[in-house]
Amino acid sequence: MADVVLLDLWVSPFGQRCRIALAAKGVAYEYREQDLSNKSELLLRSNPVHRMIPVLLHGGRPVCESLLIVQYIDEAWPVAPRLLPGDPYARAQARFWADFVDKKIFDCGTRLWKCNGAALEQATRDMIEALGALEAELGGKDYFGGEDLGFLDVALAPFTAWFRTYEQCGGFAVAEHCPGLAAWADRCRGRDDVASALTDPDKVYEFALTLKEKFGDK
Amino acid sequence: MADVVLLDLWVSPFGQRCRIALAAKGVAYEYREQDLSNKSELLLRSNPVHRMIPVLLHGGRPVCESLLIVQYIDEAWPVAPRLLPGDPYARAQARFWADFVDKKIFDCGTRLWKCNGAALEQATRDMIEALGALEAELGGKDYFGGEDLGFLDVALAPFTAWFRTYEQCGGFAVAEHCPGLAAWADRCRGRDDVASALTDPDKVYEFALTLKEKFGDK
Repeated sequence: MADVVLLDLWVSPFGQRCRIALAAKGVAYEYREQDLSNKSELLLRSNPVHRMIPVLLHGGRPVCESLLIVQYIDEAWPVAPRLLPGDPYARAQARFWADFVDKKIFDCGTRLWKCNGAALEQATRDMIEALGALEAELGGKDYFGGEDLGFLDVALAPFTAWFRTYEQCGGFAVAEHCPGLAAWADRCRGRDDVASALTDPDKVYEFALTLKEKFGDK
Repeated sequence: MADVVLLDLWVSPFGQRCRIALAAKGVAYEYREQDLSNKSELLLRSNPVHRMIPVLLHGGRPVCESLLIVQYIDEAWPVAPRLLPGDPYARAQARFWADFVDKKIFDCGTRLWKCNGAALEQATRDMIEALGALEAELGGKDYFGGEDLGFLDVALAPFTAWFRTYEQCGGFAVAEHCPGLAAWADRCRGRDDVASALTDPDKVYEFALTLKEKFGDK
């Protein structure tokens, strides 16, 4: 086994966070796509608690939960870009907004492909509000981390691969409501470390349609 | 306003984490009990996103989300006990299990006071399994942090004030299933920093009964 292995699923925004962080740090790793309908012995042994991807194996030792993996990568490979800032207050803020992405963006995104009617309209309003809060946090900066990629950039960037899906399902345009955030998304996708890690938005949308078919509200 | 202010609710396990961390570090602070049925202007302004306690105000700047507050306290007051270990892998593990407490112990605990019948039996089984996983993680150590209080100790200790409630609702004894964890809970409650921050288990149970009356499944 390679020294660094990532157990992942191509479409997962959580897995893509880890891929971006590893690419940003220039860490070579072995990517192992997982079949979640038939979980591997290695995945079950590495994450017996949640039995979920992504899992980072470093020297055989597993690290689970994407935001914790990204923090681990930042601490285990303390080279530029440093994802968490040095100042304790700025660190707390970056962690707060990354947690916000987990709690709000992921939840609203799931409701966008899953719901219909009034629930879908509510999900659309909630998503636009959540993206607006992130746009306000970005302010006039190039990245949430300032001049370079930071923790919140890594946490949020994978969801930009889902923006097309959100827009199609909710009937809105991110760029119309949040032009600053849309420009940030373009800026991220123009970087090799982010671009190499992100999945094609069209493939994500195709995948979301199969999710809707299987698990969506009827 | 004092330099350090905690907006909190007496019975909240999340708030008690912050109180333990502040006590362990010897940080003086002003405690402001919040009325969640009539949220204060200060709370709404300090945590406009989640509008929830606890909030730590340091020099007037708010930090939200209890595990992030505890990490902030550890970083802003870098004196003993250092709650997060220095080793990146050990840090990732401490964060993983603290997140496990949020995801599993809190969820099972809520189901224990809320549910009846088969759902209550399931909640009891799930709680015993989750506590067992924590007991295995503790192993033969005095504290999750080793010889002194660490991040996971601070994250979990407030829930020991809820153990009596869980036991009464689920009809089981923590000490019977997890003697090591019960001994750890006694060890924590024997410390001034923890004891000064924790609420009386009888008062917690009384409070849980009012929750059950209002919000429990009928």
